Amino acid sequence: MYRVDLNCDLGESFGAYRMGNDEEILAFISSANIACGYHAGDPSTMRHTVQMALEKGVAIGAHPGLPDLIGFGRRTMDISQREAHDIVLYQMGALHAFVKAQGGIMHHVKPHGALYNMAAQNDSLAEAIAEAVYSLDTELILYGLSGSRLVKAAEKIGLRSAHEVFADRTYQNDGSLTSRRQPNAVLTDTDEAVSQVIRMVKEGKVTSQQGTDVMIKADTVCIHGDGVHALSFAKQIRSQLENEQITIETVSHQT
Amino acid sequence: MYRVDLNCDLGESFGAYRMGNDEEILAFISSANIACGYHAGDPSTMRHTVQMALEKGVAIGAHPGLPDLIGFGRRTMDISQREAHDIVLYQMGALHAFVKAQGGIMHHVKPHGALYNMAAQNDSLAEAIAEAVYSLDTELILYGLSGSRLVKAAEKIGLRSAHEVFADRTYQNDGSLTSRRQPNAVLTDTDEAVSQVIRMVKEGKVTSQQGTDVMIKADTVCIHGDGVHALSFAKQIRSQLENEQITIETVSHQT
Amino acid sequence: MYRVDLNCDLGESFGAYRMGNDEEILAFISSANIACGYHAGDPSTMRHTVQMALEKGVAIGAHPGLPDLIGFGRRTMDISQREAHDIVLYQMGALHAFVKAQGGIMHHVKPHGALYNMAAQNDSLAEAIAEAVYSLDTELILYGLSGSRLVKAAEKIGLRSAHEVFADRTYQNDGSLTSRRQPNAVLTDTDEAVSQVIRMVKEGKVTSQQGTDVMIKADTVCIHGDGVHALSFAKQIRSQLENEQITIETVSHQT
Amino acid sequence: MYRVDLNCDLGESFGAYRMGNDEEILAFISSANIACGYHAGDPSTMRHTVQMALEKGVAIGAHPGLPDLIGFGRRTMDISQREAHDIVLYQMGALHAFVKAQGGIMHHVKPHGALYNMAAQNDSLAEAIAEAVYSLDTELILYGLSGSRLVKAAEKIGLRSAHEVFADRTYQNDGSLTSRRQPNAVLTDTDEAVSQVIRMVKEGKVTSQQGTDVMIKADTVCIHGDGVHALSFAKQIRSQLENEQITIETVSHQT
Repeated sequence: MYRVDLNCDLGESFGAYRMGNDEEILAFISSANIACGYHAGDPSTMRHTVQMALEKGVAIGAHPGLPDLIGFGRRTMDISQREAHDIVLYQMGALHAFVKAQGGIMHHVKPHGALYNMAAQNDSLAEAIAEAVYSLDTELILYGLSGSRLVKAAEKIGLRSAHEVFADRTYQNDGSLTSRRQPNAVLTDTDEAVSQVIRMVKEGKVTSQQGTDVMIKADTVCIHGDGVHALSFAKQIRSQLENEQITIETVSHQT
Repeated sequence: MYRVDLNCDLGESFGAYRMGNDEEILAFISSANIACGYHAGDPSTMRHTVQMALEKGVAIGAHPGLPDLIGFGRRTMDISQREAHDIVLYQMGALHAFVKAQGGIMHHVKPHGALYNMAAQNDSLAEAIAEAVYSLDTELILYGLSGSRLVKAAEKIGLRSAHEVFADRTYQNDGSLTSRRQPNAVLTDTDEAVSQVIRMVKEGKVTSQQGTDVMIKADTVCIHGDGVHALSFAKQIRSQLENEQITIETVSHQT
Repeated sequence: MYRVDLNCDLGESFGAYRMGNDEEILAFISSANIACGYHAGDPSTMRHTVQMALEKGVAIGAHPGLPDLIGFGRRTMDISQREAHDIVLYQMGALHAFVKAQGGIMHHVKPHGALYNMAAQNDSLAEAIAEAVYSLDTELILYGLSGSRLVKAAEKIGLRSAHEVFADRTYQNDGSLTSRRQPNAVLTDTDEAVSQVIRMVKEGKVTSQQGTDVMIKADTVCIHGDGVHALSFAKQIRSQLENEQITIETVSHQT
Repeated sequence: MYRVDLNCDLGESFGAYRMGNDEEILAFISSANIACGYHAGDPSTMRHTVQMALEKGVAIGAHPGLPDLIGFGRRTMDISQREAHDIVLYQMGALHAFVKAQGGIMHHVKPHGALYNMAAQNDSLAEAIAEAVYSLDTELILYGLSGSRLVKAAEKIGLRSAHEVFADRTYQNDGSLTSRRQPNAVLTDTDEAVSQVIRMVKEGKVTSQQGTDVMIKADTVCIHGDGVHALSFAKQIRSQLENEQITIETVSHQT
């Protein structure tokens, strides 16, 4: 029997600024990555998003980012291993407080944006983040790009990891994502995106941009929560995965 | 036998900016209030300060402040009850992560600056803060101005509180601090300051600016960590309290 | 012949966060108050908003706020006279750079949110702001609540002022706005709101909540730029003012 | 006759945090680079620092940095050309307001930290910054690493530039600074540092770490304003330069 987790970045509103369709998207996903105030989110948004996720029974994860609110955490910054460790620990702790205060359990951690990308490729940052997660709670699951240094760093220290794949991105022969600076980085056809996910889950393979079959592990699929088509895509991918007898559930429930 | 806690605000450095004599002052105090990044402090400073406090066996508390780095959390802001709750919970959680990651236990919470003063006088803010503390961990001790609404709010919901007194500030007939806008708000004579503390601890009384004896509860005394005389004052008050057979220990060890 | 300025707060987007219908609303207004990065806005948004305003021939003003991004500058903060002066000067300067770089002229300054309200009632803050504006450019026009201390402070030092009225707010006998905490603070009927403005412009009077006619000066009317009805209201008020032979033009063009 | 400018980064205090010996160092330098609130500084510090510089007759420059207060603007960030332009323009404008309000003239601009280093090596960032400076005031002088892309970008668009050299850093054969990650990056011997500067000014040459004479242009020398030896070094270099008949004056006064 096949299983996969559907995750989405939530809680990205900030003060008077609204972002995302958090309440609606929660109906379709099994785990939520909640922004922690560095690249997005604020304490009241965190509390409210945790509350909604608990009500919907969606697993809650911290979504720590770089200290770059203007850049939404998407701009690479030359932070040290030590700084990466400390900002991840800080943000996890902040989210954990809201989860614990509402009687929930923090389930996972997924770095955001540039921090996610940097940790996918840089061993020392990957290790720093994995150690920060492990030091707070050894039961947490670290989400990282499938096959990346981040998931390897987690596994190396005995931390559970989840290999993340993307429905709407294309892949290279080495299993990395096609850079957004390249043409064809993004799949715009929904059917194609869903088919790619189904094959990744069922066969553990994806066809690279070079036309080769590449092995890929798909524990969790990233779904976007904002944009006009976010909800319809979430609905469609969930429905088609279920049609394919793929159970959608959080990573911790998977074997 | 008499007992009192000596507390000090620590971890107020920020990035490249140094503040306080944290390492030295730790030798004289029994509990440390560590800034959490809103009015002062940053993740790396928090980690380092927690580490020093654990090494010295000093009890660790969160020191949440208003989101006002430029104003060092000293400027009153018209925040809602909900916002007060959420920013305190956020900051406590962040500090807690550093304490837990290093194998320690978070012992108390003391609001900073304007938040401390607002909570001393405003029931709804006091309740919001007490509830935030209680929701994270019912064992935490809430430090507040002796006799203030904040300690009363804590006691009302079954949260342990610590009545805080000031060595170098004068008092009014109602037990409140003389406003810094008034003359004689501050005691500049060290002997006088120490004598005031000894009397508060031993007799539960302080002589107000109006010349009257006022009942005051002194569970913990606030010591300053920066300024040129901070260390010598800390040394002196500790020594004289011990000469008076007053044991200096954290609040949780007191009956 | 009657004249009035229609102003709107623009440039309130921040990083990845969008706010307002800036491009569309510019068709209906004669002056734009552009956020300067403290309560909203960022450098790139400022540049882009200045560019749009210059293209549409709309007068440009700085819209300085309190340093409170999470609170959108709406939370009262206990800042000193000196601090008010300095944060206003800083923000005006930042906006001025974008205006000058694009060959435009900065026309006015309107404080935002809590800073606007505080300056309406507090002489020392009002003077600090007026002096900051005057010190940068004696030709600038300071927008403030009609009849408030802010416009009086401007006039006192020889700075041109614009008395601002609100279409959708009700007034008290003393000419102040009904607090939003009161019922009936806001006019929800568009026709009523437009009629109130027309009477303020033509007769210099408004009917207070107590049913009395109050004298009021209306140099400029505040129009909202976000919300679902913002554009239709802007279109309607402009159209009806023109039907009443009221010319809509920037304050500097008025006598 | 030989001439050189001595510049120093000033106004790096922030809120309650003090940094540097601004008042004392002003006696020894001819131009001051004043932080603008992004990596250091705040509005009140800017006003005060401008005031001191005007009183001492020291030329005033804007010292814009990356939006990274925790990292003091020293961490490389992957900002776009457009963002570099906009953050520099914003910060220049803010400082300009304080200078103009006090009757002074802004003399130059020197990017700070990582922005300075990035602009030294990256043509598109260098051009963005040069264009931002030119767009605000074509009379401004852009300070950049001697021989770097930043000064070349300035010269290309007709903006006056100043080639900056460092007293206490060693150089490579290509005229670049030895990376701080290499041994021997820093000259710790004061006499050696002063001699290096004198030779750069008089002969236009520096001996590289590889032992070769390298041509170098020295319009301005960077002096540090904080640290225990800052003042004594400033005094010494000024004195020895004068002994060598090298006139210390601002760049604009040089031929």
